Amino acid sequence: MLEVEGALALSCADAGVVPRADADAIASACSTLRIDPAQLGEESRGTGNPVVPLVRQLTAAVAGEAAGHVHRGATSQDVLDTAAMLVSRRALDAVLADLGTAADAAARLAEAHRETVMAGRTLLQQAVPVTFGLVAASWLVALDEARADLADVRENVLAAQLGGAAGTLASLGDRGVAVAAAFARRLDLAEPTIPWHTSRRRPARLASALGETAGSIGSIALDLVLLSQTEVAEVAEGGSGQGASSTMPHKRNAVAAVSALACARRTPGLVATMLDAMPQELQRAAGGWQSEWETLSELARLTGSAALWIRDALTGLVIDTERMRQNLELTQGLVMAEAVTTSLTDSLGRGAAHDLVERGCRQAVEEGRTLADVLAGTTEVPDPTSYLGVAGELVERALAAHLALGKEASR
Amino acid sequence: MLEVEGALALSCADAGVVPRADADAIASACSTLRIDPAQLGEESRGTGNPVVPLVRQLTAAVAGEAAGHVHRGATSQDVLDTAAMLVSRRALDAVLADLGTAADAAARLAEAHRETVMAGRTLLQQAVPVTFGLVAASWLVALDEARADLADVRENVLAAQLGGAAGTLASLGDRGVAVAAAFARRLDLAEPTIPWHTSRRRPARLASALGETAGSIGSIALDLVLLSQTEVAEVAEGGSGQGASSTMPHKRNAVAAVSALACARRTPGLVATMLDAMPQELQRAAGGWQSEWETLSELARLTGSAALWIRDALTGLVIDTERMRQNLELTQGLVMAEAVTTSLTDSLGRGAAHDLVERGCRQAVEEGRTLADVLAGTTEVPDPTSYLGVAGELVERALAAHLALGKEASR
Amino acid sequence: MLEVEGALALSCADAGVVPRADADAIASACSTLRIDPAQLGEESRGTGNPVVPLVRQLTAAVAGEAAGHVHRGATSQDVLDTAAMLVSRRALDAVLADLGTAADAAARLAEAHRETVMAGRTLLQQAVPVTFGLVAASWLVALDEARADLADVRENVLAAQLGGAAGTLASLGDRGVAVAAAFARRLDLAEPTIPWHTSRRRPARLASALGETAGSIGSIALDLVLLSQTEVAEVAEGGSGQGASSTMPHKRNAVAAVSALACARRTPGLVATMLDAMPQELQRAAGGWQSEWETLSELARLTGSAALWIRDALTGLVIDTERMRQNLELTQGLVMAEAVTTSLTDSLGRGAAHDLVERGCRQAVEEGRTLADVLAGTTEVPDPTSYLGVAGELVERALAAHLALGKEASR
Amino acid sequence: MLEVEGALALSCADAGVVPRADADAIASACSTLRIDPAQLGEESRGTGNPVVPLVRQLTAAVAGEAAGHVHRGATSQDVLDTAAMLVSRRALDAVLADLGTAADAAARLAEAHRETVMAGRTLLQQAVPVTFGLVAASWLVALDEARADLADVRENVLAAQLGGAAGTLASLGDRGVAVAAAFARRLDLAEPTIPWHTSRRRPARLASALGETAGSIGSIALDLVLLSQTEVAEVAEGGSGQGASSTMPHKRNAVAAVSALACARRTPGLVATMLDAMPQELQRAAGGWQSEWETLSELARLTGSAALWIRDALTGLVIDTERMRQNLELTQGLVMAEAVTTSLTDSLGRGAAHDLVERGCRQAVEEGRTLADVLAGTTEVPDPTSYLGVAGELVERALAAHLALGKEASR
Repeated sequence: MLEVEGALALSCADAGVVPRADADAIASACSTLRIDPAQLGEESRGTGNPVVPLVRQLTAAVAGEAAGHVHRGATSQDVLDTAAMLVSRRALDAVLADLGTAADAAARLAEAHRETVMAGRTLLQQAVPVTFGLVAASWLVALDEARADLADVRENVLAAQLGGAAGTLASLGDRGVAVAAAFARRLDLAEPTIPWHTSRRRPARLASALGETAGSIGSIALDLVLLSQTEVAEVAEGGSGQGASSTMPHKRNAVAAVSALACARRTPGLVATMLDAMPQELQRAAGGWQSEWETLSELARLTGSAALWIRDALTGLVIDTERMRQNLELTQGLVMAEAVTTSLTDSLGRGAAHDLVERGCRQAVEEGRTLADVLAGTTEVPDPTSYLGVAGELVERALAAHLALGKEASR
Repeated sequence: MLEVEGALALSCADAGVVPRADADAIASACSTLRIDPAQLGEESRGTGNPVVPLVRQLTAAVAGEAAGHVHRGATSQDVLDTAAMLVSRRALDAVLADLGTAADAAARLAEAHRETVMAGRTLLQQAVPVTFGLVAASWLVALDEARADLADVRENVLAAQLGGAAGTLASLGDRGVAVAAAFARRLDLAEPTIPWHTSRRRPARLASALGETAGSIGSIALDLVLLSQTEVAEVAEGGSGQGASSTMPHKRNAVAAVSALACARRTPGLVATMLDAMPQELQRAAGGWQSEWETLSELARLTGSAALWIRDALTGLVIDTERMRQNLELTQGLVMAEAVTTSLTDSLGRGAAHDLVERGCRQAVEEGRTLADVLAGTTEVPDPTSYLGVAGELVERALAAHLALGKEASR
Repeated sequence: MLEVEGALALSCADAGVVPRADADAIASACSTLRIDPAQLGEESRGTGNPVVPLVRQLTAAVAGEAAGHVHRGATSQDVLDTAAMLVSRRALDAVLADLGTAADAAARLAEAHRETVMAGRTLLQQAVPVTFGLVAASWLVALDEARADLADVRENVLAAQLGGAAGTLASLGDRGVAVAAAFARRLDLAEPTIPWHTSRRRPARLASALGETAGSIGSIALDLVLLSQTEVAEVAEGGSGQGASSTMPHKRNAVAAVSALACARRTPGLVATMLDAMPQELQRAAGGWQSEWETLSELARLTGSAALWIRDALTGLVIDTERMRQNLELTQGLVMAEAVTTSLTDSLGRGAAHDLVERGCRQAVEEGRTLADVLAGTTEVPDPTSYLGVAGELVERALAAHLALGKEASR
Repeated sequence: MLEVEGALALSCADAGVVPRADADAIASACSTLRIDPAQLGEESRGTGNPVVPLVRQLTAAVAGEAAGHVHRGATSQDVLDTAAMLVSRRALDAVLADLGTAADAAARLAEAHRETVMAGRTLLQQAVPVTFGLVAASWLVALDEARADLADVRENVLAAQLGGAAGTLASLGDRGVAVAAAFARRLDLAEPTIPWHTSRRRPARLASALGETAGSIGSIALDLVLLSQTEVAEVAEGGSGQGASSTMPHKRNAVAAVSALACARRTPGLVATMLDAMPQELQRAAGGWQSEWETLSELARLTGSAALWIRDALTGLVIDTERMRQNLELTQGLVMAEAVTTSLTDSLGRGAAHDLVERGCRQAVEEGRTLADVLAGTTEVPDPTSYLGVAGELVERALAAHLALGKEASR
């Protein structure tokens, strides 16, 4: 908030509304003043927002005539909204950094395991073979799409807010637009068409982008938890000491993934609160705006924590390719049913092929035999590695897109 | 779903996987087959999704060899997800049309009432004067930003989904990528980097864009409801017969605004459901995906209804400029307190000016006199029309942006 | 709504406000009139609620003087709110019936599998042995608690609403309280202290009780999905034809559990919408009330569907006790680590015991040996059946509570 | 958490599992040990919950053999869940106290203003007269129902949780049930039928009861905000200095009501998170349980803040009965339209009466005359005080219920 007040004063000077020396004095006070948050909170009770007491403290800290120009042209909401944008930018930078590291880890996994065959599972039933490389590639694409989205939000959604008491900037006379433009430029925030005090698209979009990011992280985390199960055990978190249980020393809980998921699960309700706050009354809301403050911080904090946890989980992930192969054999060939059907379709037609394989599967289950054994004489059951479709090609596409995003980001 | 199956068959032909004549036969059956939704629903109980019985009916409707190529390469989720994108596009087109009409109405109001002075209200207390033109301009910008956002979602977020049983497109051999590209092209949907069956960023973003749109509409609707109050009465909905009460014939309820608000209020919870469904298990979700189906339809329906209601409310809105002026006088000049303070600041300094005006206001309230009367001899209370800051300039900016968006949309 | 209008007329007669014959005529018309919902919806657009056109149709269907007494004393909201309570009661009855059947099935499972040992899993890692009887008992208690809760809501939360235009029942003169009492009695709904038109505790509590029920069902469903995984395979849904896949004939998806979970996952957002609608404006809400209508229906429908699916899943559940036993051996004894620690604690103290077992576990994992083998000479690894604590006793408690609830319900 | 560990040790002694002296030593350490929350948080990262490091610190603080009995029989979740119940009880006590004071204030307002006539407003349009006493009575009933509900939750929903690693209490041998019973008794919490580690009805119900309370408070707050509007001005918050604006000294914002509303608006999303967390995996959740922790605290904090703000708003509320009367005249008699219709119904029939009054209302609006003037010669327009129905009787009922609740609470 002090950073905002400082930029405001300098912008007023830019537009000729406040003497340069006075603006410098205010900006200087803003950069040195130390605020006690607890006391500020206490003093905010009467006015319902923390800007009034903050301005009081700031004014007291500025000497002479300059004091009269503190908070010039602004209303409390201008300061809080713009400060929220600045804080959000810092939060996004932290999230983007962790997501970048996580994406790099996913890219390494995708590349290293392009040929690693494992069971694809739909509705948690083994369905057909996939590669772990493809699974990691789908994590990679989700992380990269989240990064691109958040970068766009950072650039275009975060905007300065300056409207004065009711959006007309009346106390700045005819210099309002000039001050607002300078204000946005100084803070390196987007300049909106008009003040957005009760048009809450920006905080709402910021919130939904955070929520979508957390959701994508949560989806990866859920995969990790499921692949870490005792009965599946295809991946494990690598952190030493990680996941220790107080009473069961043998357990290796997927603590990072579970924690990421716990953070992610808390975000949809917070996004709903932000969307729900969008209908705001006339020139300043009576409740909705105020309900955004902590909610947005919480969203940023939780998405940031989720990003950090998934970064840790992915960078340290241990892959058991042997177990992947073994699990694929659990169904005694049934996981190749679609493959057999596909191979028989040309000769028998799809309907007859499907029926034949269905009968074979049922017989295999009932008699405890492998599908290959049951179908021996009729057809062969191919090896899983021969039924991976374009998994490799898809991994290439994901890696290429990752490379392209990295180049764009570094520009 | 039939449209999707048709495009799939033709795409398989494009990629040389299915004979052209067979594909044409399937596409032809898709365009003529009539499905009984209730019966399809009943038949879906066993499989948990409607695609299995749909494919059965479609296969039965296709003669000869071609029948064997129905649903080639796809899994149920491919069909449902892609169909959801097609339905969403139609819904977005309807929403965009109504938003466009509503924005035009807001633009007319902003232009016509550029000089119409009214009370700006913060926390529902009269604060400083604004113009109704500026209020309408802020509605306009919100509607136009929603339009731009939804148009972007329509173009870039809606994408084809084709991955086969677990994302490898294995049953298409090495032709998977070619078929998927043709599939997206034929349906005029974006082609994703890789299949997104359990990476739910697209439906989630679609949902949040709808929710943000509904929120913006709800905010305008709330303004209309508040300005229509018996005690405020600055605007009224113009529809004839609209708002009649069964027992109170004198009432003129803001039915369209109330209905828009009711629709909007139902969207945040649905967006939360969509975000909450993002963590999906491995290669197909066990619950989360299925929870998206009706939720997304509901979101589109409610946002569409909200758009229609706000279009009706804005196009027929009746403005009582006389009443706006009268309400501005309700506080006997107190609404000009900030203006007086601003005008005194240069001579007295901000602190002293603030104190003097505060005392004057208190005295005016206690003695039931006008602020001008109390301050007579000290300073003048200017007319509200002289304290509108850059309201006019902001209206221009909003109108210019609206014009630019219109030109872009018509390209 | 017609049922409500009928009861209202008769209650007015009970209180001497309307001639008995007229009331009978109205009640008779209410029981025979057929309404076209689509047309009613169309006619509702102008007034924003369906009661105005309904009353118009009803009035036209009543002959002579009696027509003048239709809707006597009531406002639209009275009719809609009370009708919502009646519809909810029917919905609750259906939910309660399905939950009762599901609970009986859980009780049978708990009883039959009191001694069936399986792995207890925390954070999806095998932890210590439990019994399947205890797992089923925990489902049973959740279902029974939901039943008791919903029965309480049905009895005490569902209430008649009659307040007239603004809660004073003014058009009934001094007979308002008498009419309202008769109205509640005739509909067998609770009589509230005062009208609750803008005090939305009742619909909100109804909603949260439905949401809590759906959540409990979802938790059982999630257990079933997890225990049905290919790699766990301890339970399976028994429905014939159930869970068939279009392309993978070998799969047996847990369709009922997945569907129950999908329904459950959609309820929290709807409950949030109901809670969010609680702040309602003065004597009738401008948006919040209207947002409750479909939301409440949807909640009842989804909770009802979830109850039906879980009933089907539990009544047909197939248990593989052999597989449970095998899975318990997957960790080569590590699942007994806590048991060994406990048994060593008396002689070594807890710290030393814990350290010894931890070392043993690590060695077992690294050398691929069983824990028993590693600890041979030091201590014995007991059989899982000897480390079940009070599982049996807890099953008894659950069954006893179920029996008691059944007796209470049948009174 | 330390309180829980202490009670656990003593309960183990009660059941003969731990020597009394050892239990006393542990309990004593629990009451004196000081934990650094930040450090505990840091140490929790590896295990994903704070109980493991807490137990480590506690064990170190207990001398000799007793140390071996720390945390005996319990798992981390037992400690966290039970601690959450204890914290919630303290929170409920604070909420209940503030709600009690608020209800008393509402009761005083209802009693004092039984005869104070004001406009009843539906959809924010003046509809028919009501009394401010009745409005206050409806606030009173909502507050009292919330109190009764929370008291019930405090008594019956808050329960001890003790299940050990997976719900069997295996490490306590056959003494598990005895220890659990003693544990609940010592903490004065309800004893559940069986452990509820993954049956989350209790935290979910606690959450929804808090959310419903916040919703009821929010509804009162919204009324206060609306009645405080500059154009309505029938009530004002009385706090001195309260509601001051930094730039508009004349404003008297309804800060307490706005703050209460802001708190309330944040609760539905949090309740949704709690409900959403209900489906928990097998014997301990991988994410859902962890997502409850801060969410529940936040809900209690926000509901508590809302209760405090509404207490302040109601106890200091200033009522302007003169303004209420003036506002009632704003419609020039139209607010009495229903009354006139009712009085004419006996002679003309309802249809004809309605039409006559409707015509009169339209004429009055168009010609700017009072309804009385327009209808002169046809009928009289009665005084609002004569059209209040059973408002007085309803106030009595609310006051009587308040008295009864107070007596019950003091028992």
